[in-house]
Amino acid sequence: MKKKIVVCTDLGPVLSLLTLRDDLDVVVWPHAVDTECPQAWLLENVQGASGLVVCFKERVDGEVIKAAGPGLRAVSTISVGYVGYDHIDLPLLASRNIQVGYTPDVLTDAVADSAVMLALMASRRTNLTTSVVTSNAWSAFQWTPFALSAPQLSTTPFSAKRTVGFLGFGRIAQAVLRRLTFGFGVSDTIYTPRPEAPPQVMRDAELLRGLMPNLHSLRAVDMHTLAADSDFLFVLAPGGEATRHLIDESFLRRMKPTSVLVNNGRGSVVDSTALAKALKEGWIWGAGLDVIEEEPHVGVGHVLLAEPEVREKCVVVPHLGSATHDTRAEMARLTAVNVLRGVDGEQMESGLDLGRWQ
Amino acid sequence: MKKKIVVCTDLGPVLSLLTLRDDLDVVVWPHAVDTECPQAWLLENVQGASGLVVCFKERVDGEVIKAAGPGLRAVSTISVGYVGYDHIDLPLLASRNIQVGYTPDVLTDAVADSAVMLALMASRRTNLTTSVVTSNAWSAFQWTPFALSAPQLSTTPFSAKRTVGFLGFGRIAQAVLRRLTFGFGVSDTIYTPRPEAPPQVMRDAELLRGLMPNLHSLRAVDMHTLAADSDFLFVLAPGGEATRHLIDESFLRRMKPTSVLVNNGRGSVVDSTALAKALKEGWIWGAGLDVIEEEPHVGVGHVLLAEPEVREKCVVVPHLGSATHDTRAEMARLTAVNVLRGVDGEQMESGLDLGRWQ
Repeated sequence: MKKKIVVCTDLGPVLSLLTLRDDLDVVVWPHAVDTECPQAWLLENVQGASGLVVCFKERVDGEVIKAAGPGLRAVSTISVGYVGYDHIDLPLLASRNIQVGYTPDVLTDAVADSAVMLALMASRRTNLTTSVVTSNAWSAFQWTPFALSAPQLSTTPFSAKRTVGFLGFGRIAQAVLRRLTFGFGVSDTIYTPRPEAPPQVMRDAELLRGLMPNLHSLRAVDMHTLAADSDFLFVLAPGGEATRHLIDESFLRRMKPTSVLVNNGRGSVVDSTALAKALKEGWIWGAGLDVIEEEPHVGVGHVLLAEPEVREKCVVVPHLGSATHDTRAEMARLTAVNVLRGVDGEQMESGLDLGRWQ
Repeated sequence: MKKKIVVCTDLGPVLSLLTLRDDLDVVVWPHAVDTECPQAWLLENVQGASGLVVCFKERVDGEVIKAAGPGLRAVSTISVGYVGYDHIDLPLLASRNIQVGYTPDVLTDAVADSAVMLALMASRRTNLTTSVVTSNAWSAFQWTPFALSAPQLSTTPFSAKRTVGFLGFGRIAQAVLRRLTFGFGVSDTIYTPRPEAPPQVMRDAELLRGLMPNLHSLRAVDMHTLAADSDFLFVLAPGGEATRHLIDESFLRRMKPTSVLVNNGRGSVVDSTALAKALKEGWIWGAGLDVIEEEPHVGVGHVLLAEPEVREKCVVVPHLGSATHDTRAEMARLTAVNVLRGVDGEQMESGLDLGRWQ
């Protein structure tokens, strides 16, 4: 009897890795190319499945696992973010020894590119400057040397110090740092680790060695120093209660008026209302957000988009940090390989460690 | 008798370099902070001047030089672009041995930052993606793995080759290349030099040596190869008849459908009508323009902004590549020092070589 794999999301050409296997019965949500899979279709089709492929929009909860039955061996999610598996009931899957695959490492470079883009857009205030053109104001624009001038990301021979800060200092943060140090001459780095994290003295020494002589310093600091000293601050922390509103009014008030905030981590880390106030009153220079509180329910009525004085300083992209052809294709490949390995009873190429629930 | 310096533009705090000198009579256009200097004010006030400070909006022509009289020793312009002195009658000044100061080198890093920003914005199509948010479409957006995905600037372990091309390969291009190679892992570089330029074999070998092992190749190519092989193409050529519409329909038709065009050089190099067609019909992926034909007379009726299918792929910033606090302040300092040196009969810190007219 063939093993069944249910695929709820678009894997592009790598779907053939599954369909070419004669020993598998592959059932694909037929509108996967442009439409999310309804939970009802999933529940109806998951019965008897050995493997299940989802994105973060499908819930893999007790109901789905019960509907699947005892043969389910693998759940593979094409995860799109820092954590990316809030939609899966991990303790339940762990208790049944079902492997869970995800795709964390492959999106590092794409998200790091996005973070640098947002830093440049927020510093140069592209919402404002591009609107000079689209509001037909360019021809009457009075050119003066300091008109529409902005903080500069790169160092120069005549301005040789730039401090970047990171809230959360994992893989993506380090990829951003490589871009900024080697590419843009950033000279100093500070970061605030998770409160419970042990000091990473040896790792930091190794990192600094690899980035010298471009980078002059790299050190862990408290939140006060992170706020006060960062010229560009990158939020790359995971979500959840422990990090909720770490960037709040008191933090933002301590930042430099020329500083730029970038969030590619989780929206909940930054208090949107406080950020809107900070932008409006000039506590900070600008913000670039790939993630935002209450997403995706964010539109022109949102506190960061409603008023022109805020909106022109705040770039909001709808959570597309990892959305490149190369990266999404690799995420799809890894998702397909993960489910195959799980169904075959092998260890996944990139499986979640479920040990804490076992 | 005091020497007179006429200042038509805002020098910010470095104006004091001039006004602190007791032997100088400094006359400043009183609305310099936010308004361009009318030519009539310049003509009225320039009489008897030893030094003149302008931006590119003031014309320094025969009429102004005649009005100034024989004592004029120095014209110092806070130039903002690649050439930036089209507004000054250089042959006439050369014939009178009047020094001309400008500020080219200091803006290299700021413009290079702008070029990288535009490359990222055009590849990620930020006009389109941010409009998903501002048109209230995010909450109904169907997340699928390849929706709104884009070409990736950086290389990754699973996509290790990226070729960037440069039309014009001077200081700014090389600064962009350093950012892309060290920061984003770009692997291969091609460029097309000016037709009359001698081969720069030794310079290229030296450059490549400095960028290895990140960069694998660096070579001069013809325009056909530049079009066909560039994943990201940066136009950093000067203006004028020799470069007019070098990027035309036949060039754009040879580019890759996933390629991105960035122009921080001169607007006249790129044929706007051909570019609009290329974007609309998908010959190339996107464009990021800091300069554009017919600027500053560019608004929503422009061929690159009128239609949604073009506009969403084309970012237009109103010529602000060098508009950072640090860079504009340094340009102002250099402009002030140049005029002082000229008035004092010394060689300018950054003076134009007028030899070809002498």
